[in-house]
Amino acid sequence: MNYAIVKSIIGRVLHFEAAFMMLPCVTAVIYKEESGWSFFFTALVCVLLGSLLTRKAPKNSVFYVKEGFVSVALSWIVLSIMGSIPFLVGGVITNPIDALFETVSGFTTTGASILTDVEILPKCMLMWRSFTHWIGGMGVLVFLLSFMHAHGSGSHMNLMKAESPGPSVSKLKPTVQSTAKVLYMIYIFLTFLEIILLLLGGMPLFDTLTTSFGTAGTGGFGIKNDSLGGYSPYIQVVVTVFMILFGINFSAFFLILCKKFTQAFRMEEVRCYLGIILATTVFITFNIRNLYGSFGEALRHAAFQVGSIITTTGYATTDFNTWPEVSRTILVLLMFVGACAGSTGGGIKVSRFVILIKTIKKELHTLLHPRSVRKLKMDGHTLEHEVVRATNVFLIAYVLVFAFSVFLIGFDNFDMITNFTAVASTLNNIGPGLELVGPTQNFSIFSNGAKLVLTFDMLAGRLELFPMLLLFVRDTWKRY
Amino acid sequence: MNYAIVKSIIGRVLHFEAAFMMLPCVTAVIYKEESGWSFFFTALVCVLLGSLLTRKAPKNSVFYVKEGFVSVALSWIVLSIMGSIPFLVGGVITNPIDALFETVSGFTTTGASILTDVEILPKCMLMWRSFTHWIGGMGVLVFLLSFMHAHGSGSHMNLMKAESPGPSVSKLKPTVQSTAKVLYMIYIFLTFLEIILLLLGGMPLFDTLTTSFGTAGTGGFGIKNDSLGGYSPYIQVVVTVFMILFGINFSAFFLILCKKFTQAFRMEEVRCYLGIILATTVFITFNIRNLYGSFGEALRHAAFQVGSIITTTGYATTDFNTWPEVSRTILVLLMFVGACAGSTGGGIKVSRFVILIKTIKKELHTLLHPRSVRKLKMDGHTLEHEVVRATNVFLIAYVLVFAFSVFLIGFDNFDMITNFTAVASTLNNIGPGLELVGPTQNFSIFSNGAKLVLTFDMLAGRLELFPMLLLFVRDTWKRY
Repeated sequence: MNYAIVKSIIGRVLHFEAAFMMLPCVTAVIYKEESGWSFFFTALVCVLLGSLLTRKAPKNSVFYVKEGFVSVALSWIVLSIMGSIPFLVGGVITNPIDALFETVSGFTTTGASILTDVEILPKCMLMWRSFTHWIGGMGVLVFLLSFMHAHGSGSHMNLMKAESPGPSVSKLKPTVQSTAKVLYMIYIFLTFLEIILLLLGGMPLFDTLTTSFGTAGTGGFGIKNDSLGGYSPYIQVVVTVFMILFGINFSAFFLILCKKFTQAFRMEEVRCYLGIILATTVFITFNIRNLYGSFGEALRHAAFQVGSIITTTGYATTDFNTWPEVSRTILVLLMFVGACAGSTGGGIKVSRFVILIKTIKKELHTLLHPRSVRKLKMDGHTLEHEVVRATNVFLIAYVLVFAFSVFLIGFDNFDMITNFTAVASTLNNIGPGLELVGPTQNFSIFSNGAKLVLTFDMLAGRLELFPMLLLFVRDTWKRY
Repeated sequence: MNYAIVKSIIGRVLHFEAAFMMLPCVTAVIYKEESGWSFFFTALVCVLLGSLLTRKAPKNSVFYVKEGFVSVALSWIVLSIMGSIPFLVGGVITNPIDALFETVSGFTTTGASILTDVEILPKCMLMWRSFTHWIGGMGVLVFLLSFMHAHGSGSHMNLMKAESPGPSVSKLKPTVQSTAKVLYMIYIFLTFLEIILLLLGGMPLFDTLTTSFGTAGTGGFGIKNDSLGGYSPYIQVVVTVFMILFGINFSAFFLILCKKFTQAFRMEEVRCYLGIILATTVFITFNIRNLYGSFGEALRHAAFQVGSIITTTGYATTDFNTWPEVSRTILVLLMFVGACAGSTGGGIKVSRFVILIKTIKKELHTLLHPRSVRKLKMDGHTLEHEVVRATNVFLIAYVLVFAFSVFLIGFDNFDMITNFTAVASTLNNIGPGLELVGPTQNFSIFSNGAKLVLTFDMLAGRLELFPMLLLFVRDTWKRY
């Protein structure tokens, strides 16, 4: 392990975090809130710590996959620990583990909360909660990459690989740095567009900012106890559309920017993703038709909840805990499907499912024609063996981490649906589950031990398992 | 598809089924039960149909994996349809789908029942239910193979592959035929041993036969409504030991027979399997300690239930639905683990988990040392790439079939634990699930549609997915 370089990266991340904390500071100034000082104070600590860590330029420029994974995992942990301090200092949350849970939930864009009443929080705290979604959505290291000069060979690509969701990372531009820039440009543009459309709907500015940050990062922290249930249908529809947009592979937007429309619309993953949303929305609408006043209302709630769950945002406009079992089952299955790779959404990712289903088809084909050689293709290109293998390994690790987590939180003695969906919800970075962690409930019921397990799951889900798992291997920590 | 050869194999299977039905016939004669005629009648039909199918010797001897898989899948379906007729003719079950469910549950050694009261059934019917477990446990085609001369090249191996559980089939003897013979010899010997030990405990002969058949096949159909709850501790302990024995890879017994003790005790899968049983039994004993009168009683119930679930037998001595959540969670996880490959037990199989965990370890190692080449090993031998690949593909198919089944039975609108564990229980060939399909309940609550889905799952679980999935591919049915 090249400790010097890892330290220096964490140091830079801390500097960025200090900068990010200026937004809640400004919010506190505007709303004249005293608890804003806690952000100022924490930002100062971040600057100091960061300067300490970046003081010496690393001599050794060795940067392999290992360094990439460990830098990302540790950066996210440090980011979350520092991000949780304002909640504690500001007196909003008293238990440090709760504060960590809440912050990790923010950065990983999960949106699961341990707070029972968010409406009493100061505005600066609400702003920070939502802003962590926006920072975590596209990734803080991707942000750093768009500024940073390459640290030794391969450092950029290895960091990008570790933080970006999906089975393979495609560079949109010749260098990683310019790719990161393009991604953030699209991200910022779409966020602004949503803010404007929400303002047009008569939503207050503060609400539009927090809601848009939550949508963009597919996070789900709300500023109201009933999430988005109290807003007008227009607002709900705008949020539905943007949740779905932020779940699309950003390569598609890039292709559209380059006016390669046919290529964009031919992306198998995107077509499949939109197809699933359409099919499940229609199905659920008919299934819940009788629970709502009109067909239109049922459709609106169905589309919102499907979009919210498949993109792993976790906003809610209604309590889907009360829906018929088959609709609830569909939502639980969608929790696992997740959004597209290369989007801000979580879950297993549509492209992985496309690859997995193609693997099964190929297996059946091989059983029928043992001598034929058939390659897996996606978007017209042959899928590299490495991508298929990585997808298989991901599924295995996913299933094992999932099972082990359900076992561990079983000690809290809640019912199995609660446990199962709590893990599903955190590992897929969604937010709400069912029963005791349903959309109108929260995660405060769990013991500290269970909260730590779920916190690990959120990080493991956001970073796609291996960066977090690697921290537990002794070999990782060997010096060169 | 070589239709002629498939027909001829199904024909022979029908002949064997007719022979098997003589056991309930004899039972009916002894107990002077009129419904015994239904077996005699069905056996006659089997002989006639079988003769019709085997009339012409197949000219074409082509026999690939495809023919193996389809022969096995169709044989099991035909076997189950014919096996369900006595229940209908004998007037014990009126709904044909219920009769099919019950018979498939028997042959696949699941042990899930749609009957609410088994104690009112005629003895011959009870004998048939339990005997189907014994037939299905080691496999009817494996039985046939021990008699049959090779039908064209590769027919034996391809049939064995399709019917034997586990990621790879190892021949114990130079030919498949002699391997099949050895397997059945061990199977018969262990069954006899259990019968004798149960007789020594003062159990009536009829009960020892049915109980032993159910244990040997790791099936689980009981002849009492409270399963094995009413028998003496001695009987329960004997059954516990034999359930665990029948879940061991039969290669281990073969090695012991050949006096290769060290090799037998070094088998990684077996050690892992026994380790899991020991660890979970100890854990659950302490967890349920307060629910029972003494530590010994808690231990007995824990060991019995763990043995019953991990080997996918499904007998019960107590209602584990009332256990604390963490113990219930362990049992649900054990449902998926299953027994050893090459045993009569179901589930995903311990060896697959060993391979999957090794795959993850290798992945982490590769991330740390990208240039090192490390091969997966098991029992000291390098694991063939093909076995690892097949294990990965199996897991994928398993997850997809599981999710789709949960969705389909969701239409019945029961709670999610019921649905989830009903699928887990049938796809892993266990028997009981939790909640509405718990150990003191049964599967009669489901609609006919859901019962068909679960019937498919039982067959898919027993034949390890691909033989059943292949039936749905159009290419399978092309004539040569």
